[in-house]
Amino acid sequence: MTNFADRLLLEIKHKNNPTVLGLDPKLSYVPEFLVNEVAAEIDNPLDIAGEALYRFNVALIDEVADIMPAVKLQLAYYEMYGIPGLRAFRRTCSYANEQGLTVIADGKRNDIGSTAAAYANAYLGSTELTDDLTTSLYTIDALTVNGYLGFDGIEPFLNVMTTGGKGCFILVRTSNPSAKDFQDLVLENGDKLYEAVADKVNTWGELFVGELGYSSVGAVVGATWPEQAAELRQRMPRTLILVPGYGAQGATGADVAVNFDENGMGAIVNASRSLMCAWQREENCDPEDFAGACRRAAEAMQKDLLTAIEARIG
Amino acid sequence: MTNFADRLLLEIKHKNNPTVLGLDPKLSYVPEFLVNEVAAEIDNPLDIAGEALYRFNVALIDEVADIMPAVKLQLAYYEMYGIPGLRAFRRTCSYANEQGLTVIADGKRNDIGSTAAAYANAYLGSTELTDDLTTSLYTIDALTVNGYLGFDGIEPFLNVMTTGGKGCFILVRTSNPSAKDFQDLVLENGDKLYEAVADKVNTWGELFVGELGYSSVGAVVGATWPEQAAELRQRMPRTLILVPGYGAQGATGADVAVNFDENGMGAIVNASRSLMCAWQREENCDPEDFAGACRRAAEAMQKDLLTAIEARIG
Repeated sequence: MTNFADRLLLEIKHKNNPTVLGLDPKLSYVPEFLVNEVAAEIDNPLDIAGEALYRFNVALIDEVADIMPAVKLQLAYYEMYGIPGLRAFRRTCSYANEQGLTVIADGKRNDIGSTAAAYANAYLGSTELTDDLTTSLYTIDALTVNGYLGFDGIEPFLNVMTTGGKGCFILVRTSNPSAKDFQDLVLENGDKLYEAVADKVNTWGELFVGELGYSSVGAVVGATWPEQAAELRQRMPRTLILVPGYGAQGATGADVAVNFDENGMGAIVNASRSLMCAWQREENCDPEDFAGACRRAAEAMQKDLLTAIEARIG
Repeated sequence: MTNFADRLLLEIKHKNNPTVLGLDPKLSYVPEFLVNEVAAEIDNPLDIAGEALYRFNVALIDEVADIMPAVKLQLAYYEMYGIPGLRAFRRTCSYANEQGLTVIADGKRNDIGSTAAAYANAYLGSTELTDDLTTSLYTIDALTVNGYLGFDGIEPFLNVMTTGGKGCFILVRTSNPSAKDFQDLVLENGDKLYEAVADKVNTWGELFVGELGYSSVGAVVGATWPEQAAELRQRMPRTLILVPGYGAQGATGADVAVNFDENGMGAIVNASRSLMCAWQREENCDPEDFAGACRRAAEAMQKDLLTAIEARIG
């Protein structure tokens, strides 16, 4: 199937679970026994970090691949571990893809057209090496993008999406407290900035609407702003919404339920720390059972969300 | 010296040259003889690309280090060549630093606080590996940042800057045609969005003003918008301005002169393609002389800018 939104929505339906496992790993999230295991095989501390993050990710993916449709890898954390970190990123993308999961790279990339094309090629397309040789670096289905630069900074991503059946999620309303600094600024027509961005996202996505009624040009709308989210769901009727901020950032099932349409579709909710670090939060959890703790937290999240969505759509 | 703005401004003064060599390399910018030279030593096409980009950069740096104060590396192009690309990025940063150049990484990074901290650590600070081991990945002096997420997405960069004498440049007005899509939206108080961003950048930078009167919290203002730039120079009196868009994007010396203050200070102008690809544009240029062509273009740029600044400040 060539439409990203269709593929993701069918997976969500199939697993009855509109959630994403956020893989935003810091070394301090990885149980000590696993780091030690790696350190016994490898010398360089940065290489140890990269390998430990990768094995940690693999264990979590193995544990939840049958119940969750997607993973979201936050590039910042991999970049923080340099080249070994980027290697862990690439291998994690491949592994998740092999397990049938949709892979979202959260990089919030943005630049002017010619440079945005380089990002688009890197993450969603392919890199030209010679006149007759191109290489695809990653197995990524969609990338998050920051739209501050306007359409010609977005267009290169759309161009790559067209040929590859890929997707993007453009920042509309972010989950952090300071989102209001600029995103809530009121324009002369009475709209807020994030509403103006939402309108553009909805328009830019029109050519990418799949058979299930949603566009592969998605939006990021933070779970911590349920009031704005409810309005945005109406305002961007065909836009698939990626919802960060559930769990560790404080949002509940009821907060995120407003992102879904009357059929309980159209959004996917990410949780990172609350799943990855579940083993640190679960009472008396054996660190060796870190992946099991992640699955239990993922199941609880699924139940919480389905209940809240059910309550909303009645 | 611990203040980034002071360091950069003194270098600009010392070399009498407010310009930056933009190192945004695509493999097609590298002369064939150099790619072939690398291909004779290395097998893997992506590794060839990374090594060729690095040697290309080194040759350009060698040729201009005595006349230019800084380089700006556009991360997108290195990311487009995967891990070998990132290795070329890291080695180029190190090499430029060793030659006494200020190193600016153009990544336009942005995220919520906890994740922005990971970016800040990666590019400007250091990565914690164990309780008593941290490692600094890159020799970078300043990073470009996108402010759409508001203050708590910027604060982690400021925190790292405080201890390390580093800097950042926040996008205010970008050089691309679609900059106006969102940045020109008029707010209810009559200001445009980019003006509201400029005001915040000016305020956030107050604690980072150095002895020469400029802050290490800088702004990006595209050379293609001279009218807006003239106004922004007044509006952000202590903000160091990084000016992309000269040369290949069409802006002239007169267009960028408005970014400078009455002493001819306060801004630094980037050119990438017009310098890197000068050998492809110069009439009858021997490809072996690609670095010489870059130097000649850099000297012409310096002269053009100094003349235009002189004409402006009279």
